[in-house]
Amino acid sequence: MRNLTLLTDLYQLTMMYGYYKHGMHQNRAVFDMFFRNADGLRTHAVMAGNEQLAEYIEGLSFGEEELLYLKSLNLFDDMFLDELAAFRFTGDITAVPEGTIVFPGEPLIRVDAPIFEAQLIESAVLNIINHQTLIATKASRVVQAAKGDRVLEFGLRRAQGPDAGIYGSRASVVGGCNSTSNVLAGKMFGIPVSGTHAHSWVMSFPDELSAFRAYAKNFPDACLLLVDTYNTLKSGVPNAITVFRELREQGHEPTGIRLDSGDLAFLSREARRMLDDAGFKNVNICASGDLDETLIRDLKQQGASIDIWGVGTRLITSEDAPALGGVYKLSAEYKGDAIIPKIKISENPAKITNPGLKKLLRIYDKESGMAIADLIALDHEVFDEDQPLSIFDPVDTWKKMTLTNYRICELQAPLFKFGKRIAAQYPIMEIRDYHLRELKTFWDQYLRLRNPHVYKVDLSHELWALKQEMLLSYGN
Amino acid sequence: MRNLTLLTDLYQLTMMYGYYKHGMHQNRAVFDMFFRNADGLRTHAVMAGNEQLAEYIEGLSFGEEELLYLKSLNLFDDMFLDELAAFRFTGDITAVPEGTIVFPGEPLIRVDAPIFEAQLIESAVLNIINHQTLIATKASRVVQAAKGDRVLEFGLRRAQGPDAGIYGSRASVVGGCNSTSNVLAGKMFGIPVSGTHAHSWVMSFPDELSAFRAYAKNFPDACLLLVDTYNTLKSGVPNAITVFRELREQGHEPTGIRLDSGDLAFLSREARRMLDDAGFKNVNICASGDLDETLIRDLKQQGASIDIWGVGTRLITSEDAPALGGVYKLSAEYKGDAIIPKIKISENPAKITNPGLKKLLRIYDKESGMAIADLIALDHEVFDEDQPLSIFDPVDTWKKMTLTNYRICELQAPLFKFGKRIAAQYPIMEIRDYHLRELKTFWDQYLRLRNPHVYKVDLSHELWALKQEMLLSYGN
Repeated sequence: MRNLTLLTDLYQLTMMYGYYKHGMHQNRAVFDMFFRNADGLRTHAVMAGNEQLAEYIEGLSFGEEELLYLKSLNLFDDMFLDELAAFRFTGDITAVPEGTIVFPGEPLIRVDAPIFEAQLIESAVLNIINHQTLIATKASRVVQAAKGDRVLEFGLRRAQGPDAGIYGSRASVVGGCNSTSNVLAGKMFGIPVSGTHAHSWVMSFPDELSAFRAYAKNFPDACLLLVDTYNTLKSGVPNAITVFRELREQGHEPTGIRLDSGDLAFLSREARRMLDDAGFKNVNICASGDLDETLIRDLKQQGASIDIWGVGTRLITSEDAPALGGVYKLSAEYKGDAIIPKIKISENPAKITNPGLKKLLRIYDKESGMAIADLIALDHEVFDEDQPLSIFDPVDTWKKMTLTNYRICELQAPLFKFGKRIAAQYPIMEIRDYHLRELKTFWDQYLRLRNPHVYKVDLSHELWALKQEMLLSYGN
Repeated sequence: MRNLTLLTDLYQLTMMYGYYKHGMHQNRAVFDMFFRNADGLRTHAVMAGNEQLAEYIEGLSFGEEELLYLKSLNLFDDMFLDELAAFRFTGDITAVPEGTIVFPGEPLIRVDAPIFEAQLIESAVLNIINHQTLIATKASRVVQAAKGDRVLEFGLRRAQGPDAGIYGSRASVVGGCNSTSNVLAGKMFGIPVSGTHAHSWVMSFPDELSAFRAYAKNFPDACLLLVDTYNTLKSGVPNAITVFRELREQGHEPTGIRLDSGDLAFLSREARRMLDDAGFKNVNICASGDLDETLIRDLKQQGASIDIWGVGTRLITSEDAPALGGVYKLSAEYKGDAIIPKIKISENPAKITNPGLKKLLRIYDKESGMAIADLIALDHEVFDEDQPLSIFDPVDTWKKMTLTNYRICELQAPLFKFGKRIAAQYPIMEIRDYHLRELKTFWDQYLRLRNPHVYKVDLSHELWALKQEMLLSYGN
């Protein structure tokens, strides 16, 4: 286990030093992590990374090596370093569970802790949650485009470093992928692993047929052959069929072929026809090569006959939007037991934060079970499902609706309480199942890959009024 | 230290099993790692990641945990697992040194090892080199746009996982950045760390002035104040000037201010004027906020008065091109002592590989010291600098030139020999200096940020002839 305690920006430590020197470091503060709708490419995201966030928090500890390094910077005094030596996280963290569909502006993680602790963890909280949420979101889009076909993640070689491969693989499964090629991710998280052979295998034998025969001999019951090393339709598929026939004579059923180049729509249809004609209707066709949700959708529309999609670079880097702009903002401080809401003003209204200790609620239609709207409310607010609930757009306040026959769910759940982890750890395939169920609670129009209908994320009357009051008093 | 031995794609292991079962696993093979010019956005790259590649190779070892996991997959027999238990890397690796400017198609890493070993490491070699080279390349572009101003990397919070933050920070410095905000990267690699305070510091005090005063008290000789929490020109800069005056009265010289929002061209000019008028001509202005090479260039053209550029998201993710498409291809096999060249054919000529055991040469003009062209040649070829050298374009072969008064350098250097690391480890700031010197050996037109002139990467006569011969014999 690596010590990631110094995985932070230097300014967190200079601020911690400042708070310490001014006797403010035990002041309790509340920070929210949320993302803004940065580029319009994504209107929803799939929460992921809580498990690694929890591991990071549990592992926080300044060892001798860390303290010696900090001393060498000549920025901090020894008393402060002694304080760090005794550091452990004592606060509360609540988080939206992994696999949940979330929207811009919604508080995803809430950290309620002495400011000394809350500040240290900012950079790593953002790093971990931004990354995994980014990739889970991209995966969910790819899986949606594949419409029930199996999706295999195999982006390791193009991922931004080992962790991006490992945790990107994990996040891909949170978003709905079926398996990974990454053996280490398979071992660490219990993700099914898959893979067959590369072009170099075929090139290491005198000819393609002997390469295929050799592979079939080793994996008679998992024989998936890469058919595009020389010529897909003239050599690859015919040679695969020859070997498949030999396998079947020996009592084994072949698994599939893989196409990795050329026009996948045309080649897959032709290969399907050749396989079917040869009596291999159950043999799968797996395709790969710069795939993403758009290309998968287009290939399906053009009648491609592909059963398994291998998705690499564009998934593991979220190539069209390679960063989630999650931020971590102060929303309240405690004075004794009183909660003092805080707001960050900006000339750009989209950058003004929501003040106070808050919670995130999702409202479902009781009859259909479908999500209607999300509501950000103050933590102390109570909602009675038996009473009509009026909600309104926080900007265009004339856009209102009154709900009856609804169910209301709190989305954030406790992850740490008094510095102790209290949330259970779920097997990755259960998180995946939860995400796939989540998707079914949203009408199609909200999940459309391009220009989806904007899902309502409203503020409660009380939170809206508090925010207006703080904005107006700032103006004075 | 994590065990990254399983950081590989499953198909590497299934192929290794196949080679083992067919008694081919000790057959020696040569693989080249190179990148193709995927999207036209980049015509050169900055090599990086060799150090982490070497650490990975040295750490390769299947422990009990790894073997138990592989056994649980029910794909491999016990003899094979015993073979893995005894695995260590015994081959040779040569690599272009970190910080070197490299071009599409050039062999950057050459692995010459039993195929059993060469296959296992493919995925991690690509992962590590693709990532760091990607980020070093982006950093080099940003540093080029900053024209000698200091560039600070602070993308940790938006990096694709912890490693992307840590090694991305390292690669940024290879590409020329001056410092990082990432404390762990600072500790691991000896990179200078920098950072001041965030908006939350200002918001934790009753007002901006007392927040600034408190910060100045803690860091009187490193006082850099973030001035945009409320209103940059009406409150932030005037408050900073007040505190700077107080500091100077106490005998300290203030360091700078930071702008993180608004129009950086306008605000920096105004802030500069206000600081100069108040007698703080030496105080630096640091700017941040979605910067990249294009925006830095534009801001400088519009007369922005910025001394230090803080670059985050778009650097640490290489946002406009978030993956380097490096590949790892079989180029030769040994039969006894004979080298059998191998070629990967593709209908797309750009995807046809260069066969044989090769080396990469750079030709410099002796007089100016500037790079003229690169040459990929067979390893046994000898070039005499005293003889004229004729080079030609490998596609448009009528484009020729004859060189005299030139110097020729071999770019790849041994990294591992007989499985032992032999290359020295260089301090990161020396690698950075080497890269900055490298840049000066290329004429401006080759490094232009958009539409640079294409630098010549030619094949030697002998390699070109071998490739033609293999292509023609394949056609028969």
